[in-house]
Amino acid sequence: MRSDIFKSANDLLKGNVWLNALFGLEKESIRVDRNGKLAQTPHPKVFGSKLKHPYITTDFSESQIEMITPPLSDINQTIGFVETIHDIVSLELVDEYLWPQSLPPILPDDTQIPIAKYNEEEKEAEHYREFLAQKYGSKNQLISGIHFNFSYREKLLDILYRKMNPSLSYEEFKDEAYLKTIRQILRMRWLYILLYGNSPVVDSSLELKCKLAPYSIDKDVVALSIRNSCYGYRNIGDLYPDYSSVTNFRSSINQMVEEQKIVSSKELYSPVRPKFIKSPEHIAYIELRFIDIDPLTKAGVTKNELSFLHALALYGLLSNEEDDFDVAAQAKANKYHGCVALYGLDEVPCMFEENGAQLNIWNEAEKLIREIMSLFEKLEINKSEYRDSLLHALKLVEDPQKRKVYNVLNGIQKMGYIPYHLKIADNNSRESLQKNYNFIGLEDMELSTQLLLREAIKRGVSFEILDRKENFIRLEKNGKIQYVKQATKTSLDNYASILAMENKLVTKKILKEHGIRIPKGEEYINAETAKSDYLRFQGMPVVIKPNQTNFGIGITILKDNMDEFTFQRAVDIAFENDSTILIEEFIEGKEYRFFVIEDEVAGILHRVPANVTGNGINSIRELVQTKNEDPLRGKGYHTPLEKIQLGEVETMFLQAQYKNFDYIPALGETVYLRENSNISTGGDSIDFTDNIPESYKQIAIKAAQALNVSITGLDMIIVDYTKDVSKDNYAIIELNFNPAIHIHRHPFKGKNRKLDEKLMDALGYKII
Amino acid sequence: MRSDIFKSANDLLKGNVWLNALFGLEKESIRVDRNGKLAQTPHPKVFGSKLKHPYITTDFSESQIEMITPPLSDINQTIGFVETIHDIVSLELVDEYLWPQSLPPILPDDTQIPIAKYNEEEKEAEHYREFLAQKYGSKNQLISGIHFNFSYREKLLDILYRKMNPSLSYEEFKDEAYLKTIRQILRMRWLYILLYGNSPVVDSSLELKCKLAPYSIDKDVVALSIRNSCYGYRNIGDLYPDYSSVTNFRSSINQMVEEQKIVSSKELYSPVRPKFIKSPEHIAYIELRFIDIDPLTKAGVTKNELSFLHALALYGLLSNEEDDFDVAAQAKANKYHGCVALYGLDEVPCMFEENGAQLNIWNEAEKLIREIMSLFEKLEINKSEYRDSLLHALKLVEDPQKRKVYNVLNGIQKMGYIPYHLKIADNNSRESLQKNYNFIGLEDMELSTQLLLREAIKRGVSFEILDRKENFIRLEKNGKIQYVKQATKTSLDNYASILAMENKLVTKKILKEHGIRIPKGEEYINAETAKSDYLRFQGMPVVIKPNQTNFGIGITILKDNMDEFTFQRAVDIAFENDSTILIEEFIEGKEYRFFVIEDEVAGILHRVPANVTGNGINSIRELVQTKNEDPLRGKGYHTPLEKIQLGEVETMFLQAQYKNFDYIPALGETVYLRENSNISTGGDSIDFTDNIPESYKQIAIKAAQALNVSITGLDMIIVDYTKDVSKDNYAIIELNFNPAIHIHRHPFKGKNRKLDEKLMDALGYKII
Repeated sequence: MRSDIFKSANDLLKGNVWLNALFGLEKESIRVDRNGKLAQTPHPKVFGSKLKHPYITTDFSESQIEMITPPLSDINQTIGFVETIHDIVSLELVDEYLWPQSLPPILPDDTQIPIAKYNEEEKEAEHYREFLAQKYGSKNQLISGIHFNFSYREKLLDILYRKMNPSLSYEEFKDEAYLKTIRQILRMRWLYILLYGNSPVVDSSLELKCKLAPYSIDKDVVALSIRNSCYGYRNIGDLYPDYSSVTNFRSSINQMVEEQKIVSSKELYSPVRPKFIKSPEHIAYIELRFIDIDPLTKAGVTKNELSFLHALALYGLLSNEEDDFDVAAQAKANKYHGCVALYGLDEVPCMFEENGAQLNIWNEAEKLIREIMSLFEKLEINKSEYRDSLLHALKLVEDPQKRKVYNVLNGIQKMGYIPYHLKIADNNSRESLQKNYNFIGLEDMELSTQLLLREAIKRGVSFEILDRKENFIRLEKNGKIQYVKQATKTSLDNYASILAMENKLVTKKILKEHGIRIPKGEEYINAETAKSDYLRFQGMPVVIKPNQTNFGIGITILKDNMDEFTFQRAVDIAFENDSTILIEEFIEGKEYRFFVIEDEVAGILHRVPANVTGNGINSIRELVQTKNEDPLRGKGYHTPLEKIQLGEVETMFLQAQYKNFDYIPALGETVYLRENSNISTGGDSIDFTDNIPESYKQIAIKAAQALNVSITGLDMIIVDYTKDVSKDNYAIIELNFNPAIHIHRHPFKGKNRKLDEKLMDALGYKII
Repeated sequence: MRSDIFKSANDLLKGNVWLNALFGLEKESIRVDRNGKLAQTPHPKVFGSKLKHPYITTDFSESQIEMITPPLSDINQTIGFVETIHDIVSLELVDEYLWPQSLPPILPDDTQIPIAKYNEEEKEAEHYREFLAQKYGSKNQLISGIHFNFSYREKLLDILYRKMNPSLSYEEFKDEAYLKTIRQILRMRWLYILLYGNSPVVDSSLELKCKLAPYSIDKDVVALSIRNSCYGYRNIGDLYPDYSSVTNFRSSINQMVEEQKIVSSKELYSPVRPKFIKSPEHIAYIELRFIDIDPLTKAGVTKNELSFLHALALYGLLSNEEDDFDVAAQAKANKYHGCVALYGLDEVPCMFEENGAQLNIWNEAEKLIREIMSLFEKLEINKSEYRDSLLHALKLVEDPQKRKVYNVLNGIQKMGYIPYHLKIADNNSRESLQKNYNFIGLEDMELSTQLLLREAIKRGVSFEILDRKENFIRLEKNGKIQYVKQATKTSLDNYASILAMENKLVTKKILKEHGIRIPKGEEYINAETAKSDYLRFQGMPVVIKPNQTNFGIGITILKDNMDEFTFQRAVDIAFENDSTILIEEFIEGKEYRFFVIEDEVAGILHRVPANVTGNGINSIRELVQTKNEDPLRGKGYHTPLEKIQLGEVETMFLQAQYKNFDYIPALGETVYLRENSNISTGGDSIDFTDNIPESYKQIAIKAAQALNVSITGLDMIIVDYTKDVSKDNYAIIELNFNPAIHIHRHPFKGKNRKLDEKLMDALGYKII
């Protein structure tokens, strides 16, 4: 029963509002050892329960990891999400890789393929897998792929519903939209396989059988998409669900179950499936299952391809249906799908029969793509990704040799199936190891938040980004909800303590009362008052400085024997540079950042202003260039360290030292390019966690307790950390209520202090 | 042993730094009934333990309330603090007054005077009082006064110590400073009594006995300061402590105890006493005990008098000592004190003997004041309060009839001793009742904080102002500490929940998930995007408005059948007035502020924009004037309501209604002068706590729970509060994390919801 109600919809609505959709991916990846053999090790324990983990689980085999993204409104983010899961999984593998191909690596005998193990309460899942192994053979189960979960957003459906005002309930209307989309994609799926099929060669350990009677066995088959062909993993016998309505669909499935063709709907491996979440009566989204893993990208699928599928879905929804999609029509679609998968690389193209005529599939492909393009033009959709993906498809039609599958084939030809894919796997693994801090697709968020989200994924903690600009997220696992802003603003701290940390006056008072040393000092907005306080500071080394200062201008340090005249002059100089100045006891020593969390000092860092150390040969400019090549250094807070700039501030700071960027520092000479030690302006972070004596850590913990805070970044001046704490060899400068965690993760020198893990522990998401 | 080390100090230091000091007051006030008889009722139970209450306790008698301030750095604040305690006590009295005179009201027989009662663990205090009653007689114990606790601030002492660099430890140096100050004030105290003594007449119920052997009884005595005279309350026999050092002082007291003249140091009623807090070896402050209660001021003492005493102390410290202050010198000082107290009103002045010469006391007074003035000039102290107080003293010397005691004497002459003081007490009581929200001396702080501090005083919760500008305070009772900023920012809320409330996006999402209705809507910074969202709002009443708006400019409400053109035009209009606009579902109804605290709706308020209701006679201008006369209306947030302004905004708002300030509204016609309903711009607050059905309160509590907050000011639109809540007759606009409490305390119409009390309960300071 074809649907007509969407015919007029493309006249009712214009613009990118059509693109409102949600995209989710599921990617299966086989774990292999360094020789390309199926891993025999258990699923990494750190990921916990397979059934409860929202992002990382196993499919059929214990060695077949399944990575799942939530539905996201942006294709790039969805792809980044898979990549990030991929990276996180990689980091937990020991001497293993994630196999980057739909077709399996070197497989042992069927009996040696480890079926995914479950704990006692979850044994049913294991039993089902044993049943599948029996029915289909274990090796076949290891053919992996990508599932693309797709839904129209309520925003679009709601508008469409109100515009079209059909004689259906809203839920029925949605079902109708999804069913039509499913039928249409089923009809047109051959096009996607033709352009993007990518499982051309198998390892001999997979016993290839074409599941069309009579079974043919052909070990040397080379095809566009073996996975999508009759050699792939599919149901036994032809199954034709009824896609005319949700009720009919359910009935047809029930009949298959009754006829013992399948045990339940989940055994129906159709290339596109309706999915139900809350309501079993209504479709929530659709699942596209005919996507081969692209070995050349970590996510296994590209933005281009997903945009193309989205375009196909929209076109399907809004174009005319040819027929009622009965058994004959479904069989025809299956035939095209099968032909393209098996012969899509051949010079002799598959031919389509339409009304007795034989049509060249490449001509049909071009026609279809152009139709989609003209629909998009009519709908006034102008998002470049879509235009690009359609133009790209057209290019592949014009020159089929440009299809990526040829790259893969070339690689296999040169190196062999296993070595070629192993090389890719190794590269991916190295990349995962190197860029182990970003959440791909969320790089605009603060690095501390990205790290926390990665840790959430690892631990199977669901998350949601509530306000991306504000880095405001929600975490949830087993009903435990935590709201977190900027990684360290959490429910672990009470508001009054935050306000106490924020207020220097209050912080200092509390610390002093607890016998913790703070530099004596005060803020002044009036030179008169500041000068009249000379007596208070007499006899003590002081620093007099503008409240806001750039490269040290306006700062005077008066170490001893300060006379009143010099003091007053210093006050005047400070006021020349700001309307508020600070006079503080000067404590000689280095400043260290203590990250305190729940009465533990989890990391101590000393920050050094941007600097280079000479070799007697290279100029400052060249030394900076070399230092900036470190992949940990980036721009705009997306990396643990920042590139050193050669800007105005640095120029002036060097000028004050009578140097410029062309100056060649002597061997071992360290030249500073900045006065401030912020990491964000190219400063170095040096981990001191294991160097600073326990007595200082106790002071930091005592300070945190005095203010009753769980998380704080405490700045302490230490005169000489090789000596234990005494009454006057340290001072606490301030307690920061929103300390960054990333700086402790990738210090310039020293260990990763894994604050992301500590934070997740503290938030109540411990790994058990 | 006179001290010489301070001789040179006045050359070492100049300026107001000399005035750094702390001031505390203790004031005893007798509770009397409406007839001026000593109250026979118990101490108000609300004040809890007498021994533990830091501010309100009893002295000898159960009816003798003692009000105590902490040491404060500002005289005005100290006085305000006493006034505030006085007000708070007043409000707890039923048909009773606080007696405004040092000399007692109508007393019953000694046996009928209730001695202060203590609970079982505190019985020792009661026993001591019984002993005093026996030894001195109960009636005498009811002579009340003011004790002025005074100390130099560390800031001053520290500088002096470093400048003078004496061969003493810092603690010894401080003792030396205080002992000299004590000796000198003891020598000069006659001057203060001469000018400010104010206990001239007694009621006949007090059996007046001059405690100089042989006892003289004289019922009709009239004197400058009966309390300070031989008729006052004093030790039996002459006691001469040794003021030469702390050790000697202690020895001399111990000897008195051994000789059974007194039972302990606290029975030594000398006019000036050293006080010890932490260390029994060193003086922490000094206590001046010769101050009569000034019946004409609520605090019982004025800024003028305390400044004068401070000046006297400083002069004492820095001037030469005449002698070693041995027994003879002390006796001489006592004689002058006694003479002035008894004969200070007489035309024949007391005469001082110096080296055989007879010196007129008034001449000596003038000489002394001028010396103090010249010292202050030399020290370059230019704070006007001190200059004023010294000039005022000089004026009183020139014209002794200007002394306030004459006002009191006149009043007593006209009305009689009891009626005169009762009248004052009644006035004070009325004033306390009317201005029952301010904390006098802290009026610059937010009213909500002032209310909380008053409640702290009532409950015996110590407090400290950590940052006055920020309204940041600390509360403490029985070791329980709470930091509170702006009254409702407390430790009761976790930081993540505060951030969730602060973020509209997050708040709305959470509420929506919990099935709580919020107006649909969004913020836009781009007209294009806003216009393209027409489809989302089509068919729903919307309000389109600039993010910031004044008197309704730029706001469009589109109730029904909104067409796209009108929508777009409204977007443009909004953008003409701000760079950010809001498009929101328009829900017709009134907005109510729900104050939720710990799962209870403690108050509901509806706010109405500044308005007047006509009588057909007066103009808007006149009606505003009348409305503004309400003492609850003030300026600058120091009162529960604000005066309505007749400014530019009001002018323009009336203009839009084709009205001006001269318009005469008809009888019953309400004219609004503002679009916004803020209390701060003259709006009216109307209490609805008892009117709004429980079902709405449950929604508010559910919303607070959804965000996991303890304290919130929740704004809800209710379509018609006479109907119970339903799916679409309400909507929550926002949750405020820093709601004011004062607006619920003095609504324009309705009950005081006592949120200050609720807040103190929630903070853990319940009245048991």
